[in-house]
Amino acid sequence: MLGTMMNSPLTLSALLHRAGRVFPGTSIVSRLADGSLHRYSYREFYLRALALAQGLQRIGMARGDRVASLMWNHYAHLEAYFGVPASGAVLHTLNLRLHADELAFIVNHAQDRFLIVDEILLPLYEKIRDQVRIERVFVVQHSDHALPSGYESYESLLAGNHIPLDAPQVDENEAAAMAYTSGTTGRPKGVVYSHRALALHAFSIALPDNFDISRNDVILPAMSMFHANAWGLPHAAIMTGASLVFPGMHLQPESLLELLQDERVTLTGGVPTIWLAVLRCMAQHPGRWCLQPGMRVLIAGSAAPESLFRSFDELGIEVIQPWGLTETTPMATICKLKPHMKDWPADRKYEMRAKQGLPSPFIELRVMGEKGELPWDGESAGEVQVRGPWVAASYFNMPEVTEPWTDDGWLKTGDAAHIDAEGYLKITDREKDLIKSGGEWISSIDLENALVAHAGVREAAVIAVEHPKWQERPLALVVIADADQPSPEELRAWLAKKFAKWQLPDEFVFVSELPHTSTGKLLKKELRKIYKDWYLTPPKT
Amino acid sequence: MLGTMMNSPLTLSALLHRAGRVFPGTSIVSRLADGSLHRYSYREFYLRALALAQGLQRIGMARGDRVASLMWNHYAHLEAYFGVPASGAVLHTLNLRLHADELAFIVNHAQDRFLIVDEILLPLYEKIRDQVRIERVFVVQHSDHALPSGYESYESLLAGNHIPLDAPQVDENEAAAMAYTSGTTGRPKGVVYSHRALALHAFSIALPDNFDISRNDVILPAMSMFHANAWGLPHAAIMTGASLVFPGMHLQPESLLELLQDERVTLTGGVPTIWLAVLRCMAQHPGRWCLQPGMRVLIAGSAAPESLFRSFDELGIEVIQPWGLTETTPMATICKLKPHMKDWPADRKYEMRAKQGLPSPFIELRVMGEKGELPWDGESAGEVQVRGPWVAASYFNMPEVTEPWTDDGWLKTGDAAHIDAEGYLKITDREKDLIKSGGEWISSIDLENALVAHAGVREAAVIAVEHPKWQERPLALVVIADADQPSPEELRAWLAKKFAKWQLPDEFVFVSELPHTSTGKLLKKELRKIYKDWYLTPPKT
Repeated sequence: MLGTMMNSPLTLSALLHRAGRVFPGTSIVSRLADGSLHRYSYREFYLRALALAQGLQRIGMARGDRVASLMWNHYAHLEAYFGVPASGAVLHTLNLRLHADELAFIVNHAQDRFLIVDEILLPLYEKIRDQVRIERVFVVQHSDHALPSGYESYESLLAGNHIPLDAPQVDENEAAAMAYTSGTTGRPKGVVYSHRALALHAFSIALPDNFDISRNDVILPAMSMFHANAWGLPHAAIMTGASLVFPGMHLQPESLLELLQDERVTLTGGVPTIWLAVLRCMAQHPGRWCLQPGMRVLIAGSAAPESLFRSFDELGIEVIQPWGLTETTPMATICKLKPHMKDWPADRKYEMRAKQGLPSPFIELRVMGEKGELPWDGESAGEVQVRGPWVAASYFNMPEVTEPWTDDGWLKTGDAAHIDAEGYLKITDREKDLIKSGGEWISSIDLENALVAHAGVREAAVIAVEHPKWQERPLALVVIADADQPSPEELRAWLAKKFAKWQLPDEFVFVSELPHTSTGKLLKKELRKIYKDWYLTPPKT
Repeated sequence: MLGTMMNSPLTLSALLHRAGRVFPGTSIVSRLADGSLHRYSYREFYLRALALAQGLQRIGMARGDRVASLMWNHYAHLEAYFGVPASGAVLHTLNLRLHADELAFIVNHAQDRFLIVDEILLPLYEKIRDQVRIERVFVVQHSDHALPSGYESYESLLAGNHIPLDAPQVDENEAAAMAYTSGTTGRPKGVVYSHRALALHAFSIALPDNFDISRNDVILPAMSMFHANAWGLPHAAIMTGASLVFPGMHLQPESLLELLQDERVTLTGGVPTIWLAVLRCMAQHPGRWCLQPGMRVLIAGSAAPESLFRSFDELGIEVIQPWGLTETTPMATICKLKPHMKDWPADRKYEMRAKQGLPSPFIELRVMGEKGELPWDGESAGEVQVRGPWVAASYFNMPEVTEPWTDDGWLKTGDAAHIDAEGYLKITDREKDLIKSGGEWISSIDLENALVAHAGVREAAVIAVEHPKWQERPLALVVIADADQPSPEELRAWLAKKFAKWQLPDEFVFVSELPHTSTGKLLKKELRKIYKDWYLTPPKT
C-alpha cells in the first residue's frame, strides 16, 4: 500500500527557486583575484544561475552532459553549483591542485563538454588543453585583458537569457554533480552525486545537532569548492537562506581573518592546515581581529588535533569535527556532545570532541573485524563501513572497481575505527595507503610504484609522517638497487614527471632493508611508528 | 545520467534503529490515566517497538494492513507510531472526539484489522464495536481490572517477541500512517502518509529556522497524537534524540504546567485553546510555576491571536506559529523572523510573527486569483495552493474526490491568503465552510444539511463566531418552514443523532431570511461579519 503523497522530487532546482523568491535580499560576498570584494544578493544569484542554465541549453548542452569547473571559491562557482544542475547537466568540479596529466585524465574520463574557468587558472588549463576534448571554454574574468583566442567570456554565456528557463523535470536520482577522488592506488575515480543525495545531505548538515545552519548564519566556506561539494555548505546555505562569504583564492590567514571579522562570519570550515595558520597568525597579532563570539569552525579533511579544540575554545570559538569521504557527499558523522556529557571534566570532553562523532540520520555505521561486526564498546577496532542515501554505491564508468564495497552493499572506508556505547565513532588508524597533506590525498602506493620504476631503486616505502603545518607529509624510504645510489634530487625530478609538486616526498631516506609481513607485504604500520616524529626528532637511520 | 549513490530508503525503521543504538539513554516520560508518571529510556522504547512489530507479524498482519490506535498521548502510542510501520503495516490514528457513527465509518473505510486502545477509551470503542470488523483488540492497561471478554492485553502482544524482527524492506513511498480529515462536506477522507513524507517532514521541522529540534530538547506534545502525526514531533524527536514528555489524557492547565516545569520542557505545542487556558491559570497563580527560560510553544490548529504572542513574550517564552493541514503532514510553513526584521519596532514584529510564515524547503506556495497566480505583494489575496513531497495528492480509496486538487497538481487549501515580498504567507480568510473549535473541525455544511432535513426548517446557515476559549463556535441561523417554530432544544436533539456534542451549534437564532449572492449562494462572509462578536455583544436579531 502506497502513501497518497505527491511525487515531488528533491532537486537542487527546487532549492534554487525557493531561495530566489523567499530570500531575495540575502547577501553573497566574494573576494576576487585582485583582493577586492564582489557583493550581490540571492536575487541576483538566482537570476544569474537561471541565465547560466539557459545559456547552457542554448549552446546545445544535452541532459546529463558534464560541465566542468576550474575555479576558486566565489559567486560564479556558486552559480555553477546550481545553474548547471538546473539546466539538467552535471557539474564536474576539477581539483586545481592535481598534476596536469591526472587532470587531463579526469576531464577525459568524465567526458566534460564545457568548462567554466577562472581567468587566473587559464595557465593551468593551457597545460591540459591539447590532451582534452572540451568543446567550449567560458572564462570568469575580472580584468580588462582581452581573452586569448579560443576562449569565450562567462558573461557572454549568461547574457541575453531572459526567456523563461525550459526547466527539465529531473528525477531526484539523476546526477547533479561529480568529483573525482584519489583511491589507494590507480586512477582517480568519479563519484556522481544525485540531486537527492545533495538535498538530503543539506537537510542533515543543517540540523541543530550537526552544523546548526540557519538564515541567521553568515557562512565562509574555506574548504575548496572543488572538493566534495564544499562539504555541502553551499547547498545548506541556499536551503536555509544563510549569507555566504567566499574567500576566492586568498586562503592566507590575514585575508581570511579580515573576512571573518568584517563580514561577521558565524560559521566557517576548512582543513586543519588552514586553522593552524589562522591560530598562529592571531597569536602573532594579539587583539588585531575581533571575531563573532560563538563562531563555529568545522575542521575536517584530516583529524583535528586536540590542541586546535583547546586553542579555539580559549578564543570563544567552537570547533566541530565531522567525518566523511568524497564518497559520502561528504558528511557521514558529526561530533557534538550529548546533553549529559556537558558536565564532564574538561579532559574527558576534549577526548570526546576529538572523536568523529555520531552518524547522521539515515547513515548507518558498522565496524567489521575478521569475524564479522564488532560490538559498540569503544575498544573493538576494525574497518568502519558506511551505508546511506548519500553514500556512493559505485564509481562513474568503472564497473570493474568493486573492491570498495562489501557483498552486502556497505562502503568500505579503509579507516580503522571503533564505536562506543553512545554511538560515537573514533578513527584509530588508517587502513588505506594514503597520506593526507593539507587536506589533499597523496597515494603512497602510486609514489612507491613510480620509485621502483627508477633503475636505481630496488624497493621503496612512502609513509605519512606528522607535520606541524600540513598534518602529514610523505617520507620516502628507499632501498637502492646497487652500489650507485641515486641522489634525492634525481628521484624528485623522476617523480615530478607524474606527480604535482606538493605530492612529492619531502625527503628520501636510504635504508638497507624494509620490514615485511610473513606474506611479504610491507609492514607500513611499523614504519609509520618509527618515523612518526620525523619533523620533530628524526630517528637515526 | 543517474547518480552513483546507494538506494537507501527514507523509512521510519531507519530512524527507529538509529535512535535505539545512538540514543539508548534518552528518556520518555508519560502521564498515565491515574495521573502517575511512567518513565523509560529510548532503549526500552526501541525494544518494545520492535516487539510490537514482531507481535503484529506473529498474529498474521500482512504488509500494508491497517492497525488502528485509539489512544491519548503516551509511550504506547509512540511505540505504535514506530512499531506498526516497522512491521510493514500502517498506523491509523483514530480521533477519539468524533461521533461514534463517524468513527465507525472511518474504521470501516480504512479496513482496520487490529486496534490498540487505551483501557479508559474502551467505552468509546464499545459504542462502535458492533458496527466495525476489527479482528483483535489490544488494550493498553494500567489497572488491575480484568479485561472484558473479547479483548487482549497490549502487553500480551509484545510478550515473548525476542526473535530478531523479520523486518520488511519497505519502499519509502509505502504507507506508514494514515489519518482522516473532515472535508468541507461529506464523509471524512483518509490521508495516507508515506515513510518518505514523514521522514522529510521530520528533517524540515527540525531545522534551526523551523522548530530547531535537537537532542538537547525536552519535547511535550500537547497536540493530539491522533491529529496529523502530532505535527511530526514524535518523528523529529526520534530522529534527533530529543527527550519526550507525554501528557496522556491530562490536558488541564495545572497538569500541563506541572509537567512543563518538573520535566524542564524546552519545546511544546498545541492548539490556542490549550495555551489560553495555561495563560489564565498562570495569571491566577502568579509565581507558582517556573518554566524553562526560552521555552518554545508551537501554536497551530487555529490562528494564534496576537495577544498570545505578547503574553508569552512577557514570560520569556517564545511562541512560534506554523501552518498546515492534515493533507500536508502537517507543517507547510513556519513563521520566524528574518535577521533584518529583528530590529523592527515591536508592533511590526508582532504583525509579522502572527503571519503563517515561510514555506519549508521543498514546499511550494502560490496564491491564485480569478485570473491566475497573484503577485507576492502582501496584498493580493486569493486561495493559497501548496505542492511538495509531504503534500497529499489524493485521498485513500476515494478516486472520485478530485476537487481539492488543481489540474496541474496543486492542493487547494480552501484558505484565502496573500504572500508578501519576503515570502511570508498570511491567511486572511477561510474559503472553506468549516468551523474550528478548540483545534477540531466542524463542517457547517453538514450541520446545515441536517438542519434543513428537519421538517420545521426551511433554510439554515451555520457560521463560525469568535469565542474566548474555543476560538470559534458554531452559531446556527435558521429560517423556519412555517409558523410552527421548532424549539432550540428540539433542533439540538435532532442534530445530536449524527454529530458529537461539541460539534452542535451553541445557539439557534431564528431569522426571517438569509442573504444570498446573485447566483443564490449563501453570503456567509456577510453573516460572519454581522455575528462575529456574538459572544461579546450579540447583535440584535
